[in-house]
Amino acid sequence: MTPDSIKKLVALLSQLPSLGPRQATRVAFHIAGMPTSEVTELARVINETARLKRCTQCFRIDELTTGRCTICANPRRDQASIIIVEKETDVLTLEKTKAIKGRYLVLGDLPKDGVLTTQQRTRLAALKKSIADLPGGIASEIIIGFSPTTYGDLNAEIVAGQIKGITQKISRLGRGIPTGGEIEFADEQTLDAAIKNRN
Amino acid sequence: MTPDSIKKLVALLSQLPSLGPRQATRVAFHIAGMPTSEVTELARVINETARLKRCTQCFRIDELTTGRCTICANPRRDQASIIIVEKETDVLTLEKTKAIKGRYLVLGDLPKDGVLTTQQRTRLAALKKSIADLPGGIASEIIIGFSPTTYGDLNAEIVAGQIKGITQKISRLGRGIPTGGEIEFADEQTLDAAIKNRN
Repeated sequence: MTPDSIKKLVALLSQLPSLGPRQATRVAFHIAGMPTSEVTELARVINETARLKRCTQCFRIDELTTGRCTICANPRRDQASIIIVEKETDVLTLEKTKAIKGRYLVLGDLPKDGVLTTQQRTRLAALKKSIADLPGGIASEIIIGFSPTTYGDLNAEIVAGQIKGITQKISRLGRGIPTGGEIEFADEQTLDAAIKNRN
Repeated sequence: MTPDSIKKLVALLSQLPSLGPRQATRVAFHIAGMPTSEVTELARVINETARLKRCTQCFRIDELTTGRCTICANPRRDQASIIIVEKETDVLTLEKTKAIKGRYLVLGDLPKDGVLTTQQRTRLAALKKSIADLPGGIASEIIIGFSPTTYGDLNAEIVAGQIKGITQKISRLGRGIPTGGEIEFADEQTLDAAIKNRN
């Protein structure tokens, strides 16, 4: 019933984040139904992204062919202050605040089983090396910038264990009632955190 | 901050069903971070789908270069009984039941404003033509197979208005408590329909 090329596309799309098999099937049929020029354009732009490289220091994908990204190479960013985040989009969101004066480390999709991937270990090792190369050989602060979810909390503990000794301070992003949020609808854990973090 | 090719990809991905701008950004960065061989393979398979054609009768995408699909060309399917559905995946799901003895008409993504697109009008016109060509010149039944949602209901009424006079019977899929569902958790409208459709 389902054409082979649709099946193949569904298999590939299902591996992307936020696309389950059902959504992948719908997207695949949608793509197949687009005018040929649009299909070709989508394929071309996808191929274009293969040119992008990861920063050798923060492992963020950027418009570069080699070396460090614009954030890491910026002499005004504090190299001794690092925020470890899960993904590129977290960097984009945090940069909008202009509140991060240091640099980033993108760790990649957090594991659900509490075991860091080889790639993640490599990135943490590179962080340690870059910190060892600093004057003084120690970071002033490492913020673990994971979302306050079950997996975020689990992985935050694991990462904290890995970076002990290479930084003067380890912190996490504050928890509390989001701006615009109502106390009435906040859950108990959030309220508990908001009370502890009162200022 | 965001590389140009990522921005372009996000713009294209946001137009696909079930991908909002936030998810599209995440998917775009994910694609850009995949090994080049996987990126190339995804682009290749996407291009491959451009070969697929729509059936000239039911407008379903299938492994064909021209003419009618395997369902429409099957002499054992009742050409006088038609079920109008929104999308290809609905055909796949309904075919699994083996309960549809007739043929389909894929109308395409239902409009939210109650105005059928030119493409949808063309497809309904083709349906009318194919029914006029039947012996007798009238369909025995047209089932409007839209999901029982607000937009499904709205568009069902519109389509029903369009097909009056070309069929002996117009019906919609039955509503009621889904198999495995609990009465306790069914909403009022569902229960009301289940009581009316009791058998």
